[in-house]
Amino acid sequence: MEMKKNLLVGQSGGPTAVINGSLYGVITEGLQNKEAIGHVYGMLNGIEGFLKGNVMDIENDISDNDLELLKTTPGSFLGSCRYKLPEDLADPVYEKLFAKFDELNIGYFFYIGGNDSMDTVSKLSRYADKTGSSVRVMGVPKTIDNDLVQTDHTPGFGSAAKYVATTVREISTDASVYDTKSLTIVEIMGRHAGWLTAAGVLARKFKNDNPVYIYLPESDFSTDEFLADVKKGFETNNNLVVCVSEGIQDATGTFICEYSGEAGVDTFGHKTLTGCGKYLENLVKDKLGVKVRSIELNVSQRCSSSMLSLTDLNEAAAAGSFGVAAALKGETGKMIAFNRINAADNAYALNYSLVDVNEVCNKEKTVPVEWITGNGNDVSQEMVDYIRPLIQGTPVVPEKDGLPLFLYRK
Amino acid sequence: MEMKKNLLVGQSGGPTAVINGSLYGVITEGLQNKEAIGHVYGMLNGIEGFLKGNVMDIENDISDNDLELLKTTPGSFLGSCRYKLPEDLADPVYEKLFAKFDELNIGYFFYIGGNDSMDTVSKLSRYADKTGSSVRVMGVPKTIDNDLVQTDHTPGFGSAAKYVATTVREISTDASVYDTKSLTIVEIMGRHAGWLTAAGVLARKFKNDNPVYIYLPESDFSTDEFLADVKKGFETNNNLVVCVSEGIQDATGTFICEYSGEAGVDTFGHKTLTGCGKYLENLVKDKLGVKVRSIELNVSQRCSSSMLSLTDLNEAAAAGSFGVAAALKGETGKMIAFNRINAADNAYALNYSLVDVNEVCNKEKTVPVEWITGNGNDVSQEMVDYIRPLIQGTPVVPEKDGLPLFLYRK
Repeated sequence: MEMKKNLLVGQSGGPTAVINGSLYGVITEGLQNKEAIGHVYGMLNGIEGFLKGNVMDIENDISDNDLELLKTTPGSFLGSCRYKLPEDLADPVYEKLFAKFDELNIGYFFYIGGNDSMDTVSKLSRYADKTGSSVRVMGVPKTIDNDLVQTDHTPGFGSAAKYVATTVREISTDASVYDTKSLTIVEIMGRHAGWLTAAGVLARKFKNDNPVYIYLPESDFSTDEFLADVKKGFETNNNLVVCVSEGIQDATGTFICEYSGEAGVDTFGHKTLTGCGKYLENLVKDKLGVKVRSIELNVSQRCSSSMLSLTDLNEAAAAGSFGVAAALKGETGKMIAFNRINAADNAYALNYSLVDVNEVCNKEKTVPVEWITGNGNDVSQEMVDYIRPLIQGTPVVPEKDGLPLFLYRK
Repeated sequence: MEMKKNLLVGQSGGPTAVINGSLYGVITEGLQNKEAIGHVYGMLNGIEGFLKGNVMDIENDISDNDLELLKTTPGSFLGSCRYKLPEDLADPVYEKLFAKFDELNIGYFFYIGGNDSMDTVSKLSRYADKTGSSVRVMGVPKTIDNDLVQTDHTPGFGSAAKYVATTVREISTDASVYDTKSLTIVEIMGRHAGWLTAAGVLARKFKNDNPVYIYLPESDFSTDEFLADVKKGFETNNNLVVCVSEGIQDATGTFICEYSGEAGVDTFGHKTLTGCGKYLENLVKDKLGVKVRSIELNVSQRCSSSMLSLTDLNEAAAAGSFGVAAALKGETGKMIAFNRINAADNAYALNYSLVDVNEVCNKEKTVPVEWITGNGNDVSQEMVDYIRPLIQGTPVVPEKDGLPLFLYRK
C-alpha cells in the first residue's frame, strides 16, 4: 500500500479578519479525510519560514476547542511573509523547497494569500509539473482589497467592507453633532483598487446622506473638482463626510499623497509623506477655511473581530475546504473562485469553482468605470447591490472578561 | 391646583457611545413620572441652540420603538455645542435663558456633559438660586476621558476603554504576523488624563504581552528613555506594541506632539502638527532604524456601537433616571456620582449619589501617580482591577442589512 501523503498549509501577505477562517476550512477538511491524508502540518511565516525549517504540527498541537477559537481570530495564525520566489524555476531555492516537501512527505500544499501568494502557487505548481513532483499546489484567495481576477469577490473583503460601512456610519453620526459647517475626510485602504472605499456607500441611510462623496483610485482625482464638490455639498449639508481611497491619483498618475511631500519636511529633515486625507485636510483648510478633519482608518479595517461578516467568514472557510477536496481529486495549480448565482428571487447565492492560478496572479481587478458615477465622486447602485450581501450576518466571537478571545501559537 | 412643570434635557461637549443612554434614562424616567412632570422637551445643540429657540418635543416626536433605538445610538441625538456661559451672572444671557425656561414652563433641566457642561449647570443653578427661580438644574456626567472628580468613573469611559482594549489586542495580533522586528505605536485620546490610554493594559493576555509599554500624560515623557525602553523591549519581543496618550509631555511641560511642528512645514507653508505617535514613529525610524508605524485611534474611540460595554450603557441610563428622581425630590445644582461598593466577594457593585456640581466643574481627575509604574512606562494592577469591571457585557444593537441601526432626528 502506498504511504499516505501529508497536507501542508501556509499563509502569506497582509492578514485579514477571516484568513484564519480559510485556515480553519483547510484544517478541518484535511482532518476529515484521514483515509487519504496522512498528517496535517502548517508552515510558519509562509514560504520564507518554511525554508528555514519552521513547521508546526497542527494535528497534534491544535485541539478541537482551539480550532473553534481559530476561526474568529484575526491576523495570520501561522505567521506571514512577503517573499517572492525567483522567476527562474532553475533557481536552487525550488529544489530546496521541494526537498523539504519530500522530507515531510507532503502531497498537498495550500497557500492562503493574495496576488503575490498566487504567484507563488503558480511557480510551485509549474515547478512540480516540470520535475514530475506529485505535490499538488493550491491557492486559497484572501485580500481585503478584493482585487483578484476570476472570482466574484475575495474572502476578507466582506468583513473589511462591513468595518468600513459601519465605521463611516458611526463617524458620520459623530460628525453631525455640532451646528457649524464641518468636513470629515475618511481615508480608506486600497492603493490601486477602490472596492473597499466604495463600501462606504453602504453607510448611507437615504439619498444624499453621508458619505456625500466617494473618490476611488480608478477615477482621475482633481483637487479643483474636489474643492468644488465640497462647496456644493455644503449647500445642502452642514456636516459633510467624504470617503477617499489612499490611492487616489490625478490625471498625470501621481498619487495625491505624494504631493504632501513636495514642500514638507519633518523635524528630522525627512520629507513628510502623509496620507491623501491629511493632504486634502490641509488643502481645504487653506482654500475654504472651514472646519475640517481627516481620519485614516487604520489596520482595524483588516483585523477587527467585532465587525466580522458571517457571510465572509463562512465563505472563507468553505474556500479552504473546497480547495482540499479538489486537491484530493487530483487538482493542482488552481485557485478557488467564487461565482455569484443569479437566483430567481434575487437572493444571494454562491458556488465554488477552480480557476487556473496563472490566470489570476499578477493581474488586478479594479472597479469597472461604469460603476463610478457623478463627476467621479460617487458609485452606482450596482456597487451597493454587489457589496451588500457580502457584509451580512454576525458570528459569535468567544469572549473572556469583556474582550474577544483569540488563539495564538504557543 | 398648581400647573405641573415641564422637563428639559440637553447634551453638550464631545459625544460618547453612551451619552444617548443617559438621554434615554432621563426621558424614560420623565415619562414615568407624569403625575409630577407636565411634558418632556429636548434642547437642540445645547444651551447655544436653546438660546436660538431650538427645542424638540420629545414626548410627541419619539415613539417607544425610537426610544429603544436611541439607547444604543452613538453621538449626541439632540446635537451638541461648545458654549461657555459668562462668569458674571448679571450678564443678560441668563435673563434671556430663564425667560425661555419660563416660556416652556420648565421646572427641571438636565444637562448631560463633561467638565464644561458642569460649569453650565453650576452657573444656571446659582442664577436660579440668586433670582429665586424654581427651575431645578442637574448635571448628568459623560466623558470618555474619565476626568471628572467626585465620582468613581464617568459614563462613556467604559465603552471607550472597551474599544481601546479590544482594538489594541487586535492591532497586536495584526502586528505579530511577520518575523521581522517591528514597533507599533498606538496613540490614544486623552490630553491631560491618561485613563483611556491606560485601558490598553487590558489587551495583555499574560505578563510582558503587548502592549509592552504604556505612557500617560501624568508622567514626564523622555524621548531618550522611550528609545531605551524600545531597545530593551526588542530583547524579548520581536513585534513591540506600545500605547501613548495624545497628551504625553516632557519634563518642561511641552507636549511631545508640539515638537513635530518645530521644523516641519506642509505643502501650504503651515507648521505641520502631527500627533505624538507620528512624531515618535519618525524619531524611532531616525534613531533605531527599525520598522515602525504609528496608529492614531480615531473618533471611533467615542462613537463605536460595536464595542459598547453593557455595564457602561446601563450605568449611563441609570445616571439619567437617578437625576430625574432626585430633581423631583427637590434637588438642584447637583451632579450624579458613581460610588463603587466594596462587596465582600470582590464583585463589582455601584450605587448612585449626588455631589455639589460646584465641587466638580473646572477640576480634573488625573491618574494617581502610584498607579503609574515602571519607569513611567506602565500601569499597576490597581488600574487593571479598576477598569476591568467597566467594560463587561455587550448590549444587543439593532441591525438592518448588516449594519447598526441608529435613531436620528427627522
